Amino acid sequence: MSLMAAEMAEQPAVLARLAARLPELADAVRLVCPEPLAGCVLLARGSSDNAAVLGRYLIELASGRPAGLAAASLTTRYGATTDYRGHLAVALSQSGGTPEIVTTATTMRAGGAPLVVVTNEAASPLAVVGDVVIHTDAGPERAVPATKTVTTQMLALIGVAAALGGRPVEPAAAVELQDAVGAALGGGVPAPAERWADVDRLVVAGRGLGYAAALEGALKIRETSAVFAEGISVADLLHGPIAAVRRRVPVLLVDVGGPASGDVAALREQLVRDGTPHAVLGPGADADVRLPGGLPEPLAVIVATVLLQRLAYEFAVVRGLDPDAPPGLSKVTQTH
Amino acid sequence: MSLMAAEMAEQPAVLARLAARLPELADAVRLVCPEPLAGCVLLARGSSDNAAVLGRYLIELASGRPAGLAAASLTTRYGATTDYRGHLAVALSQSGGTPEIVTTATTMRAGGAPLVVVTNEAASPLAVVGDVVIHTDAGPERAVPATKTVTTQMLALIGVAAALGGRPVEPAAAVELQDAVGAALGGGVPAPAERWADVDRLVVAGRGLGYAAALEGALKIRETSAVFAEGISVADLLHGPIAAVRRRVPVLLVDVGGPASGDVAALREQLVRDGTPHAVLGPGADADVRLPGGLPEPLAVIVATVLLQRLAYEFAVVRGLDPDAPPGLSKVTQTH
Repeated sequence: MSLMAAEMAEQPAVLARLAARLPELADAVRLVCPEPLAGCVLLARGSSDNAAVLGRYLIELASGRPAGLAAASLTTRYGATTDYRGHLAVALSQSGGTPEIVTTATTMRAGGAPLVVVTNEAASPLAVVGDVVIHTDAGPERAVPATKTVTTQMLALIGVAAALGGRPVEPAAAVELQDAVGAALGGGVPAPAERWADVDRLVVAGRGLGYAAALEGALKIRETSAVFAEGISVADLLHGPIAAVRRRVPVLLVDVGGPASGDVAALREQLVRDGTPHAVLGPGADADVRLPGGLPEPLAVIVATVLLQRLAYEFAVVRGLDPDAPPGLSKVTQTH
Repeated sequence: MSLMAAEMAEQPAVLARLAARLPELADAVRLVCPEPLAGCVLLARGSSDNAAVLGRYLIELASGRPAGLAAASLTTRYGATTDYRGHLAVALSQSGGTPEIVTTATTMRAGGAPLVVVTNEAASPLAVVGDVVIHTDAGPERAVPATKTVTTQMLALIGVAAALGGRPVEPAAAVELQDAVGAALGGGVPAPAERWADVDRLVVAGRGLGYAAALEGALKIRETSAVFAEGISVADLLHGPIAAVRRRVPVLLVDVGGPASGDVAALREQLVRDGTPHAVLGPGADADVRLPGGLPEPLAVIVATVLLQRLAYEFAVVRGLDPDAPPGLSKVTQTH
């Protein structure tokens, strides 16, 4: 069994373990959160950045204050020393060792922001500078494509949002999540992996909370199978890129069942009208990749992400590639 | 002459006209800016969103407070009523009529943010709700691909940044900008348009302030020529997507000559090692598309954007397409 498949398979257990620790972690975040809160800034790169996209939606909804994503180059290249007083900073990195994330997080903290670190390495340089460290505790991740560290980051951010006023993950929902992730890992090969075995371009589109899953699914497909996949917001797609897609580039629609579901359905109708090949990951009975219904939307994003990991994995297998070792990638990116 | 070419050609004049009004506009922004400032949130979609990416860098550097981009769906789909007190909101829309931008900007203002509107339609629904309206005054834009309204938005945001502590555009620099844009519009067909006449996938990569130009260049290429072009940060590209690019997808590197130039050069070296086809838009003597040197970096972004418009235009022409009327697009997107 490949490393990636083995690590994907650990997700029900590691998510359940983290879910049990969320209440105490939320308490710790609450203790350092500025009062009053001016806003929240999330810092990440790569897969962690896709988890951060989910976090920025959830945290803004929960806290009622603006949340956004940091641009690391402002610190590392332009020498910005932004005044972060009143803001909460959340830095995410699987390894806790990417230089630009460590440098920028340290600068944000020096600028006055209490720093929440979400990492899988509790003794990493990033963890050392955190006021609160959320250790995702997913065990060592050796495959280059990050899987269990991403979904635990997403769950950690649901915990951070709960600390800021959002809905906590009830124990019953945690069990439901574990079951749904287990089910997502089983079953046959996802239909689009076989149907699109010859495809070399792909768009993965979502909106609202589902946008984060779409971004992460596209990144995973690119890493494992070298298919030129782009994650995009349904709304952005209609603003120009649709012209480059019509009839020629297949679109995978990600519907996580929340208030943006209607937008995904409307785009689907347009793709049908245009004759653009497409598939749907969602809770509908006619979905090509079926997402279990009934989960709270933030948890549905995690399950959708796992389904997209499976799709990325099978995209590689069907192309005869080794998903563990994509050409030209290393596990810890040394971006400054 | 096509509408797009005619509107592109108006840019030296409309940019000069706006540059002359920047000092008074900066004064107006200064008058409404919260004191103390908690942060700044920019709101836009499509090409305007690419201008907003430039704005978020410049405004954070200028104000010394966090700046970020709004997620409109939080308002229009999730019913968020975020508390924006202490924050400055900047909403950008060529038409001032995109429903989600008008709704979200109105909600941000109701949440306590003074609202700066940047639009080309001074009597639009968006302009009506602004505390300060920066009319880009570029004249009617009829081609679907936005050109003069984007570069004037960029210049307007340089003015907003100046209001918040950034470097104003000196009259001499405005003249230099006008000359450089004029020169960018002349000359022969950009080399990559001919070299990549058969290309159907493309990556446009930049970092720092140049990231905004890369995003806008990629969007323009997608709109005009239906080439599946993706704008991406140089740093993000190294975090996974490079695996889908190696040797097969050409990369256009955008170097606007600032502190991120070294990152663009380092990526170029990697592309050379990998054997990935690439071209450089930048100030170097050996650049494939030559950017004039000596301009302040924010103004160089505008010139780079014009060079990329030309490239997008020629990409369409070489493919026998009409750049004015991309299939499936309309001028005002009705996203909610």
